[in-house]
Amino acid sequence: MRLSKRKSDELRPVSIEIDVNRYAEGSCLISCGHTKVLCTASVEEHVPFFRRRTGLGWISAEYSLLPRATHERNRRDGRGSSVSGRTLEIQRLIGRSLRAGVNFASLGERQIMIDCDVLQADGGTRCASITGGWVALRLAVNKLLQDRYIVRDPLHQQVIAISCGIHAGSHILDLDYNEDSNAEVDGNFVFTSSGELIEVQCTAEDKSFPTASILEFIELSSKGASELVRIQNEALAKKNA
Amino acid sequence: MRLSKRKSDELRPVSIEIDVNRYAEGSCLISCGHTKVLCTASVEEHVPFFRRRTGLGWISAEYSLLPRATHERNRRDGRGSSVSGRTLEIQRLIGRSLRAGVNFASLGERQIMIDCDVLQADGGTRCASITGGWVALRLAVNKLLQDRYIVRDPLHQQVIAISCGIHAGSHILDLDYNEDSNAEVDGNFVFTSSGELIEVQCTAEDKSFPTASILEFIELSSKGASELVRIQNEALAKKNA
Amino acid sequence: MRLSKRKSDELRPVSIEIDVNRYAEGSCLISCGHTKVLCTASVEEHVPFFRRRTGLGWISAEYSLLPRATHERNRRDGRGSSVSGRTLEIQRLIGRSLRAGVNFASLGERQIMIDCDVLQADGGTRCASITGGWVALRLAVNKLLQDRYIVRDPLHQQVIAISCGIHAGSHILDLDYNEDSNAEVDGNFVFTSSGELIEVQCTAEDKSFPTASILEFIELSSKGASELVRIQNEALAKKNA
Amino acid sequence: MRLSKRKSDELRPVSIEIDVNRYAEGSCLISCGHTKVLCTASVEEHVPFFRRRTGLGWISAEYSLLPRATHERNRRDGRGSSVSGRTLEIQRLIGRSLRAGVNFASLGERQIMIDCDVLQADGGTRCASITGGWVALRLAVNKLLQDRYIVRDPLHQQVIAISCGIHAGSHILDLDYNEDSNAEVDGNFVFTSSGELIEVQCTAEDKSFPTASILEFIELSSKGASELVRIQNEALAKKNA
Amino acid sequence: MRLSKRKSDELRPVSIEIDVNRYAEGSCLISCGHTKVLCTASVEEHVPFFRRRTGLGWISAEYSLLPRATHERNRRDGRGSSVSGRTLEIQRLIGRSLRAGVNFASLGERQIMIDCDVLQADGGTRCASITGGWVALRLAVNKLLQDRYIVRDPLHQQVIAISCGIHAGSHILDLDYNEDSNAEVDGNFVFTSSGELIEVQCTAEDKSFPTASILEFIELSSKGASELVRIQNEALAKKNA
Amino acid sequence: MRLSKRKSDELRPVSIEIDVNRYAEGSCLISCGHTKVLCTASVEEHVPFFRRRTGLGWISAEYSLLPRATHERNRRDGRGSSVSGRTLEIQRLIGRSLRAGVNFASLGERQIMIDCDVLQADGGTRCASITGGWVALRLAVNKLLQDRYIVRDPLHQQVIAISCGIHAGSHILDLDYNEDSNAEVDGNFVFTSSGELIEVQCTAEDKSFPTASILEFIELSSKGASELVRIQNEALAKKNA
Repeated sequence: MRLSKRKSDELRPVSIEIDVNRYAEGSCLISCGHTKVLCTASVEEHVPFFRRRTGLGWISAEYSLLPRATHERNRRDGRGSSVSGRTLEIQRLIGRSLRAGVNFASLGERQIMIDCDVLQADGGTRCASITGGWVALRLAVNKLLQDRYIVRDPLHQQVIAISCGIHAGSHILDLDYNEDSNAEVDGNFVFTSSGELIEVQCTAEDKSFPTASILEFIELSSKGASELVRIQNEALAKKNA
Repeated sequence: MRLSKRKSDELRPVSIEIDVNRYAEGSCLISCGHTKVLCTASVEEHVPFFRRRTGLGWISAEYSLLPRATHERNRRDGRGSSVSGRTLEIQRLIGRSLRAGVNFASLGERQIMIDCDVLQADGGTRCASITGGWVALRLAVNKLLQDRYIVRDPLHQQVIAISCGIHAGSHILDLDYNEDSNAEVDGNFVFTSSGELIEVQCTAEDKSFPTASILEFIELSSKGASELVRIQNEALAKKNA
Repeated sequence: MRLSKRKSDELRPVSIEIDVNRYAEGSCLISCGHTKVLCTASVEEHVPFFRRRTGLGWISAEYSLLPRATHERNRRDGRGSSVSGRTLEIQRLIGRSLRAGVNFASLGERQIMIDCDVLQADGGTRCASITGGWVALRLAVNKLLQDRYIVRDPLHQQVIAISCGIHAGSHILDLDYNEDSNAEVDGNFVFTSSGELIEVQCTAEDKSFPTASILEFIELSSKGASELVRIQNEALAKKNA
Repeated sequence: MRLSKRKSDELRPVSIEIDVNRYAEGSCLISCGHTKVLCTASVEEHVPFFRRRTGLGWISAEYSLLPRATHERNRRDGRGSSVSGRTLEIQRLIGRSLRAGVNFASLGERQIMIDCDVLQADGGTRCASITGGWVALRLAVNKLLQDRYIVRDPLHQQVIAISCGIHAGSHILDLDYNEDSNAEVDGNFVFTSSGELIEVQCTAEDKSFPTASILEFIELSSKGASELVRIQNEALAKKNA
Repeated sequence: MRLSKRKSDELRPVSIEIDVNRYAEGSCLISCGHTKVLCTASVEEHVPFFRRRTGLGWISAEYSLLPRATHERNRRDGRGSSVSGRTLEIQRLIGRSLRAGVNFASLGERQIMIDCDVLQADGGTRCASITGGWVALRLAVNKLLQDRYIVRDPLHQQVIAISCGIHAGSHILDLDYNEDSNAEVDGNFVFTSSGELIEVQCTAEDKSFPTASILEFIELSSKGASELVRIQNEALAKKNA
Repeated sequence: MRLSKRKSDELRPVSIEIDVNRYAEGSCLISCGHTKVLCTASVEEHVPFFRRRTGLGWISAEYSLLPRATHERNRRDGRGSSVSGRTLEIQRLIGRSLRAGVNFASLGERQIMIDCDVLQADGGTRCASITGGWVALRLAVNKLLQDRYIVRDPLHQQVIAISCGIHAGSHILDLDYNEDSNAEVDGNFVFTSSGELIEVQCTAEDKSFPTASILEFIELSSKGASELVRIQNEALAKKNA
């Protein structure tokens, strides 16, 4: 039994509130239990140098923890020290994941910047950033379509992410901070809405795990991913309602 | 007549929602029109080196704009460049202002760190940070008193701040972004709840202004400050209610 | 009575020696009591990116304390740490103040860089930098006019700055280091030669001050400003003599 | 058929030359095809601050590409820019992987620093760094045991890593640079000598992949891992021979 | 008698292995006793900004110690701190020395970047970098000539460097680390193959030395330089053999 | 004939004004022709970590060009970029040179920091910094002796430096900026007052020079050094007069 009384394959309550920022082309606030991430998508009419004059767009991401998102205050990245390896690793993952569902020729030579600012952290912030980041991206692309900057939808798949791990010997879905900090194995799975994988990361904390655990993780995370696809769709549907 | 239909001495709607962060010792979300600042106060049981072994506490502040707090996305401070002069100037002002109302011997040798993260910016972010920052500070100090870490209240004054300026030839209170970016003169006034001043900053943008304008600013800002004192008290009263 | 025997509204002895640098288009060494600042103005035939192709010029300033300008040796800015907030704040103030007296269309699309290097510091270095920086600027602009790079004088006002504050309960003008480090309130006032204000900054160190003090400061600083205008003119007159 | 004529489950020729550095406590040069990594293990009698006074040791890793390890010269990390996200991500992976096979109480409160400097890169540098890094670690620990700094062997498992991916629709083992830069999916698998997993990372480059591919990867990489265990042991055996 | 039994004017065994890197246009591994430096020459079809549109080429150098090149592990330059003064000084010397033997008009508007990575350091690493760097440069220029990018040989002189110093009162050639760390005077001499000087650097460690010592150094180092010229030529001859 | 009408072995007019800074323990302004360097010596009652608890003192130096010390304004070191290699190289030379004349046991465990700020540069700034830096050092040590912090004089030698080079085929002493920027060879010689050498640096700009030139440089620079010793002594004598 989990401390939170959740079943091993049960997500925390997830909510996605859209259009929370007045200026961004797309935005949402995603809450997964006590984890809260503000996601904005900013359309910029320029691309990184390696995309120039290719006709292709780009999607990039930045991730940041607010200083008091955590139990103890943490130092702001980039003040008095360089951006931490953990931050760079997470924002590279977010960017890679969101790019996998995009047709860059349809997007045209522009960049969409996804900013994921963690207001409160209780485990699973990188997964929440991907799931919420995709909603912000969807809204920004909708705006480009409405405003006729682009004519074909560049997003061919929804992208969602969910954690699972081994805690106290059990395989569980969607770890909160307490579970995560005691987990034997910790994994993040990025899925498309068609049930295929974009990225798998599994890490043993102290010791190794049998290859069979991977199968259990895939089963758990596939189930979580389906629910998140539905929640993304419900959040987006409110706009049209 | 102002674009927003406000009178020259009229504040924008201000709301302060307290206890918005699960981990911080004190926190609030302050909205002044479309400007929104998340303020947290973090109690740390250590002080900067210049306070060590003095028995005296310290209060410090950090200010940051989220990248899409603004009309155009702005670069995160400290990523790929050092923290901007504007940011440093603002957080020095916030720290100085909040320290002016504190008895550091009563606080004891500990630091309270005030983080002001601007979620959305529509002018007046530094003033909102001071007014909201003081509420977060008050809540954190209340917790120290309740938990008996300290026995005497170190806060002897409320601290609030408000902008005023000259726009289209008129002296006006509480400039929004549109007014601020066209103002001839732009000022920030930090007050105590007893109506005295802690800091005055007035800047002419292109040309100079007569010394008499200072008197008009003081009258306008004194009026605004009184209202903000009342709004701080109402926000704090909800907790006890 | 002040330690230095000065009256409350009395400036320290001020001298301005012009043309002290062989290469700069304009330069002076300003001494205010023991405070000594070397000011140079460098004309550069390019402008910051936000001015490009506007036909408008720009004026920027850098401020720096030599390491042994102070009682104790201070670390050079930018060596082993980033430029301090205090330095950035001061050089932003110098630039803003000097720009207020300039017609940028008459200057044309070029930049004048004002460097203020404090050789010895005894209080009031930012005010001396503004007063001396304006003289260097005047000399550089004179050279542009003589050399027929520009035809209309872009400087329509002299710019001067002076400090005042409350020390031992009295309102005094032009604080030296000893007075400044014990002052209850510390203010800097930037004036034009027509007696109008460009910038006002007043800061209470520990506690607040009544709004009426602002009026006293304006009276004191107006008087000081008039004398500085005369001293600027005398220094410049030596060249033509 | 692969360009290199290798079968889908065939490693490149691997060689490990030990004791290549005169000063390091452990060292080897590992070659996997044209990829060459110099690995050194340095024993340091201090630990990072979070391990101090715990009696527990630590293992950390740094990874670096020499500038001309690659087809085109690449900029040195940390010169004119901060260390790249890719470098940080790889060296975090190396450190995590090697730590998983260690009993830190047996190691005692000391740190072993693993430096992996890539002399020539032809794909698979992070995996070669882990496999070679473990050999350097083993040699350094052997020296600690011989010199009686420690009495019980802290290494309870060998650690090896190998890449696999999907290239031209086929699941293949040990991608070289040409294969890697055209792969649809790219994965790295870190194993213990007992055939369990320490870390799994799989990334789709442009589109998603079915969950069944994970099973194929595990089969391929398990086979490669067994061979690498044998090669590690042969390299180490030369010393005793 | 030197600890190594070498005579005062005797070089350590020197070997130069060419073409050790698969990608670089020129490369060698130079060993001088236990000092080993990997030198690569990379041809880049662009030049630094001060050479643009001049038709002239450029040669630049970077020098780096691998972390365990030394008895104690040393921190990587540019990680957690800026590049050390020693490193900058050495790489400036290498670049200057190699440039002295080059006709930049014949090279054309391209840059050759010389990277000197010290795999193992036992004294004399800057001299080995210059002597080996020149061989890498020679090979890269040969390739440019063969591939008909250039038609006239831009290298009119070989460049070599050798250290000498005063140790235990004797003037000696080619100091190893033990000798260098106890030397009274330490000098580096850069020669052309025609026996002329490009650079002289002599430094007393604690006390001064008579001007006559310079003459003894020149005699010693001239002799060492002749031998190094021969060794460079033998290494290059292997290619053609 | 030199443009300045100086003979080949003739110094520019040199003046040393002592005690130009109110706070520094020792200070002087040295002028060599149009080159002007402000040198201060600051006594600090702590030493770098490698000297702690050794009973030995240390001397360190910092060198900086004011932005308009040069014909064209140069960027301040450490603002927007790291300190340049040239600056690091020069300040390492100054520190090494001044340390050669010091008995660190007599100085005791304290540091004297020599700051050399170039107000105006016309060639030879590093030599002027050494010659002037030694005068500042001498004054600071005199103060330590007078104030009885130390009892034995730690300075056993005067230290001076002078440039020479080959210009238009002639060997000349004390190059000004015009000569230096066209010189074929450029050298700096640091001497003690007993006529021995501390450091020699000679650099060919484009091509090599015969070893015999070194002898001519030593003769020229020895002569210049004697004059500088006398000028140092005259400057110091004014204090006692």
